[in-house]
Amino acid sequence: MDPNTSGLAMRLAEAGQSHLLQFWEELSPEEQGHFTRDLQKMDFQEINGFFEKAMEASSSSKQEKMDARMEPVPREVLGSVTRDRESLKDWEEAGLRCISQSKVAVLLLAGGQGTRLGVSYPKGMYDVGLPSHKTLFQIQAERILKLQQLAEQKHKIKCCVPWYIMTSGRTMASTKDYFSRNNNFGLDKNNIIFFQQGMLPAMDYKGKVILESKGKLSMAPDGNGGLYRALGNQGITDDMQRRGIEFIHVYCVDNILVKVADPSFIGFCVKKGADCGAKVVEKTNPTEAVGVVCKVDGLYQVVEYSEITLATAEKRSADGRLAFNSGNVANHFFSFSFLRDIVQKYEPELQHHVAQKKIPYVDTKGQLVKPDKPNGIKMEKFVFDIFQFAKTFVVYEVLREDEFNPLKNADSQDAKDTPTTARHALMSLHHRWVLNAGGHFIDENGRHVPAIPSLKDGTDLPIKCEISPLVSYGGEGLEELVRGREFHPTLMIDESGVHELVKNGV
Amino acid sequence: MDPNTSGLAMRLAEAGQSHLLQFWEELSPEEQGHFTRDLQKMDFQEINGFFEKAMEASSSSKQEKMDARMEPVPREVLGSVTRDRESLKDWEEAGLRCISQSKVAVLLLAGGQGTRLGVSYPKGMYDVGLPSHKTLFQIQAERILKLQQLAEQKHKIKCCVPWYIMTSGRTMASTKDYFSRNNNFGLDKNNIIFFQQGMLPAMDYKGKVILESKGKLSMAPDGNGGLYRALGNQGITDDMQRRGIEFIHVYCVDNILVKVADPSFIGFCVKKGADCGAKVVEKTNPTEAVGVVCKVDGLYQVVEYSEITLATAEKRSADGRLAFNSGNVANHFFSFSFLRDIVQKYEPELQHHVAQKKIPYVDTKGQLVKPDKPNGIKMEKFVFDIFQFAKTFVVYEVLREDEFNPLKNADSQDAKDTPTTARHALMSLHHRWVLNAGGHFIDENGRHVPAIPSLKDGTDLPIKCEISPLVSYGGEGLEELVRGREFHPTLMIDESGVHELVKNGV
Repeated sequence: MDPNTSGLAMRLAEAGQSHLLQFWEELSPEEQGHFTRDLQKMDFQEINGFFEKAMEASSSSKQEKMDARMEPVPREVLGSVTRDRESLKDWEEAGLRCISQSKVAVLLLAGGQGTRLGVSYPKGMYDVGLPSHKTLFQIQAERILKLQQLAEQKHKIKCCVPWYIMTSGRTMASTKDYFSRNNNFGLDKNNIIFFQQGMLPAMDYKGKVILESKGKLSMAPDGNGGLYRALGNQGITDDMQRRGIEFIHVYCVDNILVKVADPSFIGFCVKKGADCGAKVVEKTNPTEAVGVVCKVDGLYQVVEYSEITLATAEKRSADGRLAFNSGNVANHFFSFSFLRDIVQKYEPELQHHVAQKKIPYVDTKGQLVKPDKPNGIKMEKFVFDIFQFAKTFVVYEVLREDEFNPLKNADSQDAKDTPTTARHALMSLHHRWVLNAGGHFIDENGRHVPAIPSLKDGTDLPIKCEISPLVSYGGEGLEELVRGREFHPTLMIDESGVHELVKNGV
Repeated sequence: MDPNTSGLAMRLAEAGQSHLLQFWEELSPEEQGHFTRDLQKMDFQEINGFFEKAMEASSSSKQEKMDARMEPVPREVLGSVTRDRESLKDWEEAGLRCISQSKVAVLLLAGGQGTRLGVSYPKGMYDVGLPSHKTLFQIQAERILKLQQLAEQKHKIKCCVPWYIMTSGRTMASTKDYFSRNNNFGLDKNNIIFFQQGMLPAMDYKGKVILESKGKLSMAPDGNGGLYRALGNQGITDDMQRRGIEFIHVYCVDNILVKVADPSFIGFCVKKGADCGAKVVEKTNPTEAVGVVCKVDGLYQVVEYSEITLATAEKRSADGRLAFNSGNVANHFFSFSFLRDIVQKYEPELQHHVAQKKIPYVDTKGQLVKPDKPNGIKMEKFVFDIFQFAKTFVVYEVLREDEFNPLKNADSQDAKDTPTTARHALMSLHHRWVLNAGGHFIDENGRHVPAIPSLKDGTDLPIKCEISPLVSYGGEGLEELVRGREFHPTLMIDESGVHELVKNGV
């Protein structure tokens, strides 16, 4: 199909993107067919509009003034597991009640590929090397299963927590296949709903779409904020409505400690009458690379660490804490009506953010070039861009060591957020669960291991201990299994009982 | 000299240590001579007494009850750089006044060898790979020099901060030689006073001294608390008195960020009328491997992380902070009269702590054995053992990222407290000094680098920036050098000016 006769060439010319056809004559008929289909799906006028707005918003003059516009989260909208201990039980019960009424859904952002991890499959399929070798997906699935059981036991009523999983075009097939091969980890497959986030082309600084080969656009997912467009496009909000979902817990796949559908968080948000809430961890070091939840011009948003000046990052409250200390962990609560309003009304108002990247491209001679400095942008929306529309926004502060440890990078010296740190974080949490339930660990010489294990040869090796989510969601129910008992690591507690794994026997 | 005729064999027999002579006949005359001299120096009755008391104190039953006896540091004895910001200037001025009056000395604990670092020379001689390649000793020397200058400039009076350096038998010669070869880094050699901590033999669990070879005892330094005995033995307190020293700042060599003779800390302690003070950093994670300053049975002490139960480690105050959050960083203030009383009166009351170790030994057949589990103990006193004798004890809380980063281990995956982390900590601090003085950094594309640099490839690479202590002790005096200027890293500011080091040109 000739682009000149089909009108495609004209549309591209009108959008200033005619360069995309510069290698047309060199493509095989099959390549021409594929490329035509790709191009016809795109609305280049809309994309040009995204580009202009995004570039305008990212102009540096605006950033300079951010400091004066920022205000910390006021205490009255903050719930804290360390400062509001007396309310925790109430919040948890309220959340569990909502779950038992099947009003709660979880929504997983799982579009990312494991590129920085050095794998070609979806991040959720990564095995960080736990004794059980469970993947992130399996751990999360089992937490949902356990939570349903806890709610059912408490309220004597059958319930379900539907799991909406957003993948990208690149990860959809392998994700679905992985769940299916594993029998959905015991969950009802009707309650696992996959959907797909959109893609946008990479552009150079002049707004020209970049070719990654002579007949192929350079495409990238449109950011985790692509969620909202996808929710509408793919009928997900309709599905939620049909199921009677009232509250949604949104989170990212990479956090091994994530409390999926955390009843305390949900209960806190519900009791506060919030339409939108963010779970945060306390930022304690001014230069830690984490975005902070705060108000800007009176509206809630996340200010990314790259946008903040040192003076603002170092600012402190009278109590000595950092003023901007609500570290964002991509873990949010939405009421259904809020989410529906976002999807139906506000999504188009959201601007794309600009991420400057080194984007491989074909030059005018058709040669592939891998640039060594940024040569263009990817356009992304962020899941937290919608905080500004909340009528009642709340913030829930939890302990990092209990709830947040993201998997981002492959193991290597100086790397942070690796399989090793993720594995250690989970085993350390489970070690603490055992101690708090009255169990003890003993070393090879038969002596009690201290609660805070010594560093061996300067490396921080936790007690090896793993507890299946099918046994305990958040540390509950372990007393009868461990109280007064002594264990040699590796300790493994799962549905079949309490096991000590012999060395080399895992 | 035959041990039987000299009375040595009798003395050993009386002390139950006759096994030390089991290989006597196999030693050469020269070895016999060395061994005899070593043995004659030792007071085995005293050592046996140390052993009995230390073993009794470390018996586990006592430890179990620690929790109930512990109380947090009360707010009224606490000074905090984040919570008492309005007082900081006063404290600093008070401290600087004392320094200008030559009433302040610093006392460096530098007995450690770089064993865990993988080097055979004293830790203070380690170069962590800064652009300047300065060692820990040089950095500390230059801070003292600068502080003297600051005090002199402010008070128009010549002053001196004597530097007492405690080495061990193994590190004395190389330390002295290193200072001498480097012309004492510009300090007056009369104001650098070296002295040596004692050694004690390693013992097996039955109290028998361990032989490391047929004619040689297994000896180890007696812990950084050996300080007090050495201060008396070697006339150091007398020297302090002669010089009119009233306040002493004690610290460990391995902290690259140490504010030697920190005027704010000294001023705080002096204004509070304290005889003893501890600088601490906030412990924020319950299972962090750091000792905490607290009260036990009403007396101040450091409870080590291995002694604490999880329940106590996780305990929180009403403000949400950990109740036991005063993380000890081996950084203390003593009034001279307090220190003199310790040396003269209280030192003998201090008990040794037991460190179970794998100690190489010769077996009854004369074969060297390297055990793979602990087979004996080393006996150590700790520098903080004397807190209990303070009449007015205070605690001064500072920011970890500004003041504490110890060098303990060689670089390797998962290792903490390495040359890399030390180097990064110092460069990050100096980066912040430049930003707070109004300077900026720009990247290879000419763009401003954000205050919180992005992670590159998941590794946390700070802006390369080093400021000589001879230019700035604590961030002061940089405005005129950097305000409104833009720098390409590596930025180096030293006595000769402001330099941008070209790549590969360091």
